[in-house]
Amino acid sequence: MKAVRLHEFHQQPVLDDVPEPQLGGPLDVIVRIGGAGVCRTDLHIIEGQWDAAMGTPLPYVLGHENAGWVHAVGSAVSSVEVGDTVILHPTPTCGLCRACRAGQDMHCSASSFPGLSGDGGMAEYLLTSARACVKLDPQTRPQDVAALADAGITAYHAVRKAIPLLYPGTSCVVIGAGGLGHIGIQCLAALTAAKIIVVDRNPDALKLAGQLGAQHTVLADGGQLAAVAELTGGAGAEVVLDFVAEQGAEHDGWAMTGRAGSYFVIGYGGTVQVPTLDIISTERNIVGNIVGTYNELAELMVLAQDGKVTLHTRTYPLAAAPEAFADLDAGRVRGRAILVP
Amino acid sequence: MKAVRLHEFHQQPVLDDVPEPQLGGPLDVIVRIGGAGVCRTDLHIIEGQWDAAMGTPLPYVLGHENAGWVHAVGSAVSSVEVGDTVILHPTPTCGLCRACRAGQDMHCSASSFPGLSGDGGMAEYLLTSARACVKLDPQTRPQDVAALADAGITAYHAVRKAIPLLYPGTSCVVIGAGGLGHIGIQCLAALTAAKIIVVDRNPDALKLAGQLGAQHTVLADGGQLAAVAELTGGAGAEVVLDFVAEQGAEHDGWAMTGRAGSYFVIGYGGTVQVPTLDIISTERNIVGNIVGTYNELAELMVLAQDGKVTLHTRTYPLAAAPEAFADLDAGRVRGRAILVP
Amino acid sequence: MKAVRLHEFHQQPVLDDVPEPQLGGPLDVIVRIGGAGVCRTDLHIIEGQWDAAMGTPLPYVLGHENAGWVHAVGSAVSSVEVGDTVILHPTPTCGLCRACRAGQDMHCSASSFPGLSGDGGMAEYLLTSARACVKLDPQTRPQDVAALADAGITAYHAVRKAIPLLYPGTSCVVIGAGGLGHIGIQCLAALTAAKIIVVDRNPDALKLAGQLGAQHTVLADGGQLAAVAELTGGAGAEVVLDFVAEQGAEHDGWAMTGRAGSYFVIGYGGTVQVPTLDIISTERNIVGNIVGTYNELAELMVLAQDGKVTLHTRTYPLAAAPEAFADLDAGRVRGRAILVP
Amino acid sequence: MKAVRLHEFHQQPVLDDVPEPQLGGPLDVIVRIGGAGVCRTDLHIIEGQWDAAMGTPLPYVLGHENAGWVHAVGSAVSSVEVGDTVILHPTPTCGLCRACRAGQDMHCSASSFPGLSGDGGMAEYLLTSARACVKLDPQTRPQDVAALADAGITAYHAVRKAIPLLYPGTSCVVIGAGGLGHIGIQCLAALTAAKIIVVDRNPDALKLAGQLGAQHTVLADGGQLAAVAELTGGAGAEVVLDFVAEQGAEHDGWAMTGRAGSYFVIGYGGTVQVPTLDIISTERNIVGNIVGTYNELAELMVLAQDGKVTLHTRTYPLAAAPEAFADLDAGRVRGRAILVP
Repeated sequence: MKAVRLHEFHQQPVLDDVPEPQLGGPLDVIVRIGGAGVCRTDLHIIEGQWDAAMGTPLPYVLGHENAGWVHAVGSAVSSVEVGDTVILHPTPTCGLCRACRAGQDMHCSASSFPGLSGDGGMAEYLLTSARACVKLDPQTRPQDVAALADAGITAYHAVRKAIPLLYPGTSCVVIGAGGLGHIGIQCLAALTAAKIIVVDRNPDALKLAGQLGAQHTVLADGGQLAAVAELTGGAGAEVVLDFVAEQGAEHDGWAMTGRAGSYFVIGYGGTVQVPTLDIISTERNIVGNIVGTYNELAELMVLAQDGKVTLHTRTYPLAAAPEAFADLDAGRVRGRAILVP
Repeated sequence: MKAVRLHEFHQQPVLDDVPEPQLGGPLDVIVRIGGAGVCRTDLHIIEGQWDAAMGTPLPYVLGHENAGWVHAVGSAVSSVEVGDTVILHPTPTCGLCRACRAGQDMHCSASSFPGLSGDGGMAEYLLTSARACVKLDPQTRPQDVAALADAGITAYHAVRKAIPLLYPGTSCVVIGAGGLGHIGIQCLAALTAAKIIVVDRNPDALKLAGQLGAQHTVLADGGQLAAVAELTGGAGAEVVLDFVAEQGAEHDGWAMTGRAGSYFVIGYGGTVQVPTLDIISTERNIVGNIVGTYNELAELMVLAQDGKVTLHTRTYPLAAAPEAFADLDAGRVRGRAILVP
Repeated sequence: MKAVRLHEFHQQPVLDDVPEPQLGGPLDVIVRIGGAGVCRTDLHIIEGQWDAAMGTPLPYVLGHENAGWVHAVGSAVSSVEVGDTVILHPTPTCGLCRACRAGQDMHCSASSFPGLSGDGGMAEYLLTSARACVKLDPQTRPQDVAALADAGITAYHAVRKAIPLLYPGTSCVVIGAGGLGHIGIQCLAALTAAKIIVVDRNPDALKLAGQLGAQHTVLADGGQLAAVAELTGGAGAEVVLDFVAEQGAEHDGWAMTGRAGSYFVIGYGGTVQVPTLDIISTERNIVGNIVGTYNELAELMVLAQDGKVTLHTRTYPLAAAPEAFADLDAGRVRGRAILVP
Repeated sequence: MKAVRLHEFHQQPVLDDVPEPQLGGPLDVIVRIGGAGVCRTDLHIIEGQWDAAMGTPLPYVLGHENAGWVHAVGSAVSSVEVGDTVILHPTPTCGLCRACRAGQDMHCSASSFPGLSGDGGMAEYLLTSARACVKLDPQTRPQDVAALADAGITAYHAVRKAIPLLYPGTSCVVIGAGGLGHIGIQCLAALTAAKIIVVDRNPDALKLAGQLGAQHTVLADGGQLAAVAELTGGAGAEVVLDFVAEQGAEHDGWAMTGRAGSYFVIGYGGTVQVPTLDIISTERNIVGNIVGTYNELAELMVLAQDGKVTLHTRTYPLAAAPEAFADLDAGRVRGRAILVP
């Protein structure tokens, strides 16, 4: 089958012919890919940023944001069957560790992460497990929802954690209205009555943000701290969701967070640097966020099916992967780029 | 009356003769001080670290950790009367702002902080408000409990926030077994079944920690990261309570925090410096902590009255304040130094 | 001044000439009433149902749902001033008990309840306290928002408690789309993405419910249990908000509550009767609800100001109070009846 | 093998010779029973109380509280191996439904309940699944811990839910100091600093309660309401844990619950009957409780291993099952009766 594989760091992935994956264990599932999202993390993988943490031997197939149709199932799989339309939780989990037994899929002590820890979904077929499959309405086109599998679940997970902090009268700053951010804004609008303030460098992204539910948009042209201060009556926001967390956003995000507030780190690449006196004198928090739970992905699919979260996507054939990567890197993608095999 | 006043930063406070405070508003209360705790924050105040945040004009009376007897009350005070034994919440609050109405005394938008924002309790009398007074059993000696007014409430507040994270089978690292830490250890032992691991540079402090309920003590001699890693099966702790947060503790504390864990900053002086990739890939949190609520102080007094929290104190007459500061600075105080007018 | 007073149980209240209230304590506030809501509780008071609990000597002025303009303030009041437009929390509180210090105004151990425990707001002026006043935009017409002071806060309080249970994919049944229910529906729509199913005996109330955000409406004509079962896939609802809780609704409400679900009792008059085996075998909860906190009233005013909660009201002059009571009793009021002095 | 089977309702179970269970699916596990607890639910089963809910065809083997050693495992089991000492969660679960994915094992939509829904553990061998096995220290004697598998997990689950309500200064009433209650008391003492008040009809049970951590014991001889009122300053308890919930306890339990408090139903047999006016005017809650999660069982085993929860048990050989049932029924068992094959 055709697959987009990374052969060397700092080089573009290549469209290879590789063998189709085969069923191994009784809970394995093979999915025919209908859409595979292109994520900033893919750029970071190509740059080698994840090598220290993952150490995955090259070459391997990229793609950790996948949806499609069940193609084959192991002997003990009863939750899905061949032909089902599915979206895939990014980390097939063991189901037996403390984290799994608490529903904290993203902290499974024995999970894999296809597309980071081994072959992913930028290919015709992907090997995953029954525990990763969320069954969808058969009418759903996988390419229309694939971006919810990682960008979506990650944004939703952060918003869901923030809900108790975002009662009416509070403000939530969203830094970055791209692939994740544009979903986060819609989740906020669907699940809270907080004032949504979106900060981005790109005027087009801000325009989209306004259409998706942002009450205020702020161009990150140097005056963003002052603008957010003014919009929050000088107090800062109760919650800041930072979908960028690099190139200065990580400093802005903390500074925009008000007394007793919480700064949610979702993007990555930069370094948080804060005096402990600042942390304690205002009792602010820094909240880590990674992917989300299986149930959160299922909940997000309800929002999508109800039309409360809609994706802005642009599709590319598998062979155009390099072009998709380049568009993302250059900030030319509004919403999410999707590869369709 | 006699009072310990700071005249210049970087110079020792001086025992002055000053006028007694007078009642102003209808909710004012004047307390005859029975005990005033000496806190590392006093050293930081002397060093000028709080000047930027507070800007309090010199000279003023130090002392933000106070207990005593009600000496005079304003016309509308009904909750305490002259002669009552009381411990004082450190921040008299307005009672009307959003934070006060939510019970979040430490975030009152119009509170004062006697000893930091104006005259404190290292004196014979202190002016405070009815809202700051927690009434005690008349048998209680103020000097025996004064340290609970700030060291106690701060440690208790952090522990109380951590309780939901500390179910049986989890580990809690306590960095620093001094004035706050030795109270925090007892609160942990009273309110959770977590494994308590205490880290300190001082063997005597560790000995005390062991007597107060620590299952494991670790000398911070350079091998502390490895020791905590071993004690937590390589996973790190679910919660780290850092009562130091300077001089390297702030790096240790983060490193000792396990996946999905929370690093509570309670001490201050250092700078947290963490790549956002580390925050998100492990979904760890950094949690700010400052003082606590009025109800938390009342709850802590229940623990004290039940004998579940006992203070290790050393008393000094008011005139010996410089000696008490010096002892604290040199690490010669086990538990807390208390000035008794 | 003119005031609507209850002289005897089971008899209509009477429009009397009574002396204006006078300021007593330093935190007292006198409000010129702009609107006073008529509540089913007023009918219950007239029937004597609250006599055992309250024992208020007759005659006294009814009206526990009030908004207006500040007319006079005590010497220590700084949070509002004469002329301010205000809505009143129904229970002026002491501000000093454990409940007040935790923000749980409705559990104040020393609160009054004007209109139940003494003279209320169906009059030209009302005596209350600074702690009860929520300041409003001066443009607001008190008669337009008065119903939020009790019907509103009570519905909002219940919904806010239910939010964590109402993630996407869940169902919330609302029993009763009257004074409280029609506000509850709007709060649910503003703050959750749950499926809202409204049950009422009155087709007009259901029509209004549909306009306010209910996805499904069910006529309570005997088939309501079957209808809710079908709408929830046979599983019952995660949350049932029962704004009636009498005349059989209290049995329906429990029966409509699914496994691990919560039945919120908000209305009253009936008796819950449930085998403990039913409670434990399904691990269902019964949740009491009364009024709400000061901050919740302030939050609700934000929703109102943002247009997310709009009241359906019908105004009557003070002299027409008996007519208003009769209309409510006969089910002729859509939304809320408001007396305007 | 030998097994205690129920042949007819209202008749004593019989020790039969039956075939050993066989492995079916790849995740099946067969456990050699080391101890099987005798529970009041067994008496209720014999009386036919569970027939309507379960409809299990007779005869079948009783016993839903089991521990032992792994005897055989299915082809896909990797979490335990033959010879492991294990305690069994009472409900083998599917691992794939919403409840399982949220860690709510007791609400699995496809679980079985050996001993209620089919053959249980009062036998030499039991068929269960890998998901039910909690691995223990090999030194543990199954008969010493078996009672934690159901009595323990159920008591622990209720206590864990109550922890946030039981801050220092609060009171917790425990009704019934028998099989579940004597574990609940120890969990309360280990995990909270609340005042523990135990109510029971049996003076011996109260004596045991005092030894296990109860601060106050109250004989249920008719004066129990007055006694609890006095012990709680007239206010009632913040939490009541009712391990009986029949024969009047269900009325006492509600009456002992203070304003804004929660009445936890854990036992069963009676009927709760409460006017909705009582529920709302005090904002009290009734909280259902059933079994607990897999992780809760694992947490409880930590408490047991740390010596914080110790069981009071009396062992009987399998053949003496009728005697054990009779002793339990007559109130002659302190703690828990355990059958040892």
